[in-house]
Amino acid sequence: MRTQVAIIGSGPAGLLLGQLLSRAGIDNVILERASRAHVLSRIRAGVLEEGTAAMLDEAGVGARMRAEGLPHDGFDLAFDNRRHRVDLHTLTGGKRVLVYGQTEVTHDLMDGRDAIGAQTVYEARDVQPHGFDTETPSVTYEKDGQTHRIACDFIAGCDGFHGIARQSIPHEALETFERIYPFGWLGIIADVPPVGDELIYANHPRGFALCSMRSTTRSRYYVQVAADERVEEWTDARFWDEIRRRLPDATAEAMTTGSSIEKSIAPLRSFVAEPMRFGRLFLAGDAAHIVPPTGAKGLNLAASDVRYLFDALREYYIEKSTAGLDAYSQKALARVWKAERFSWWMTSTLHRFPDQGTFGQRIQHAELDYLFQSRAALTMLAENYVGLPF
Amino acid sequence: MRTQVAIIGSGPAGLLLGQLLSRAGIDNVILERASRAHVLSRIRAGVLEEGTAAMLDEAGVGARMRAEGLPHDGFDLAFDNRRHRVDLHTLTGGKRVLVYGQTEVTHDLMDGRDAIGAQTVYEARDVQPHGFDTETPSVTYEKDGQTHRIACDFIAGCDGFHGIARQSIPHEALETFERIYPFGWLGIIADVPPVGDELIYANHPRGFALCSMRSTTRSRYYVQVAADERVEEWTDARFWDEIRRRLPDATAEAMTTGSSIEKSIAPLRSFVAEPMRFGRLFLAGDAAHIVPPTGAKGLNLAASDVRYLFDALREYYIEKSTAGLDAYSQKALARVWKAERFSWWMTSTLHRFPDQGTFGQRIQHAELDYLFQSRAALTMLAENYVGLPF
Repeated sequence: MRTQVAIIGSGPAGLLLGQLLSRAGIDNVILERASRAHVLSRIRAGVLEEGTAAMLDEAGVGARMRAEGLPHDGFDLAFDNRRHRVDLHTLTGGKRVLVYGQTEVTHDLMDGRDAIGAQTVYEARDVQPHGFDTETPSVTYEKDGQTHRIACDFIAGCDGFHGIARQSIPHEALETFERIYPFGWLGIIADVPPVGDELIYANHPRGFALCSMRSTTRSRYYVQVAADERVEEWTDARFWDEIRRRLPDATAEAMTTGSSIEKSIAPLRSFVAEPMRFGRLFLAGDAAHIVPPTGAKGLNLAASDVRYLFDALREYYIEKSTAGLDAYSQKALARVWKAERFSWWMTSTLHRFPDQGTFGQRIQHAELDYLFQSRAALTMLAENYVGLPF
Repeated sequence: MRTQVAIIGSGPAGLLLGQLLSRAGIDNVILERASRAHVLSRIRAGVLEEGTAAMLDEAGVGARMRAEGLPHDGFDLAFDNRRHRVDLHTLTGGKRVLVYGQTEVTHDLMDGRDAIGAQTVYEARDVQPHGFDTETPSVTYEKDGQTHRIACDFIAGCDGFHGIARQSIPHEALETFERIYPFGWLGIIADVPPVGDELIYANHPRGFALCSMRSTTRSRYYVQVAADERVEEWTDARFWDEIRRRLPDATAEAMTTGSSIEKSIAPLRSFVAEPMRFGRLFLAGDAAHIVPPTGAKGLNLAASDVRYLFDALREYYIEKSTAGLDAYSQKALARVWKAERFSWWMTSTLHRFPDQGTFGQRIQHAELDYLFQSRAALTMLAENYVGLPF
């Protein structure tokens, strides 16, 4: 079997790249280790930058997102028992974000892929990229007891942090950068109306909290917990008690509680691998970089990688130029590092750190205080939150 | 002996407060442990915010500063072998800073105090504030073998970080916040023309460097060194070699070197004591807070404390209201913490830290990169550098 671009991984990065390629007439196959149902069961981010939403439109799968997604013109930062609004729309000259779950994005992209008849191989075992330092790369996988080989021009590694793509690159060719944060996020989903129309990020002496949502009837709430916390120790009642203690009184009182339909703890990590290209293998999304979830940059960074990679591949196939492919890694990383910086900053500013001491706490407070007294500082926050330009 | 306000310390904070009080007809005495010559030999900061310069005008001692000070419309940040200009004047809607040495400020204030005949007691030994938690405070000191007592309404503690004023406050009444940085600044003064018309702050893999000046013929240069570095190990030649290695090639080549006339290593510290008032004792300047020198906020923060304290004392004596005095600590600290934040941020962004790792280095680089691509981010830097409003 032969294709032009073999894509490893059917998360949003792989699916979006595949959809854009297919619509541009560039043949591609997606290989996914898990089942379709498993991929769809992953619960992830839910805040789309305008650039990300525009790419879903461009990929022809934006209709449901536009109908059901919730445009947000701002969000709140809560501290000192008060909520302070960040008016994204005004601060950025008219931009906003769209609240629409990653699961829904994946769903729409899968439906779009089905509609155009492009191929995804689910439950492809032992996926392995080969020969990507030659002119004739290929990808092998096991399925139904047989080994298959797909010859291709390029391999796109969109298979996440734990995927095979990055691990296939010789160690000495990669430089990695990492910070592990000394805490996690305990998150729940509950079918209760969100406490606010917009997201609320809270800095509180007991730790960070976030009130987010998936829809007007489904809430997504988080509290910062110790890195070694066990989810079994958190009853719904304990979770609701804790998050309410971290919110302004009026917000806590207004909160509707209910049974959780999902509850889990996620670690927080910053990670970047450089370069994002090795020969004919290109990394995109979590395969190359991880951000902590504060600021909701993960999915949006995957989309910007795909923006650059798709443009480069189209340039290669249509204009016969390798300029875009040659510039991919540098271009993608320049944006990645700015988002890494922002996510690190937002994480650092809103969480309690075991080693920050009282000086560090006051600096955090001064930062928040200053934000709401300086148009420039608030604009800086807003322009990063809505997404820096591609 | 009796006065209205007893001021401990004849640094810029004490002298400026004394001058403003005297001109408003409020009697004051300054007690200084050291000799006049010793005070004048201290070499400190040299960048004045407009608000600080305006206060020196208001105190009637601004003439020489206006004639000899160098107005700077911007400064450079150097990294990646390039200088990037921060146009303070444009970014802040017309503000600038004034380069004029702290020694000169002290000189002018002493001359002004002489001219109006206000009293300063130099070489006052064992200065001790008393009864500041009562209605009848006083200050005692030894001079020429005798003990003197000055009864007063208020005591202003302007005697620096190591002074007696803060130490006299019961420990349990103060909360202190501190960060010691794991490096120092090795600084020299040399009578050579400065390498640039404006200041150059450099972030370099070998560490931070700063090209500053006192005049068009006197340069003030610094390099970051380890906290335990000994100044004896730094010949002039070694210093010049080191600073040139940390600057862009073109800047290093343009640098004029020469014999140092002063060379010393200063530690970097962030410190805040709260509150800044205890009864009838008021702290101002370094007695209450220290900033690392990056960003040149120390002298300017002392001036803003004096702004609030002088206004409060005038209100007390003229309008018979204690409102200003009651609000002093909170008002001063709100501005102090923003300057602490800025000084910490600028220090964190420009220095190498032993424990920052490669991730931290990349975040620093992303921060610098982002600064020069975002008007909002550069405005944030500029508005803090020229000084937030009082």
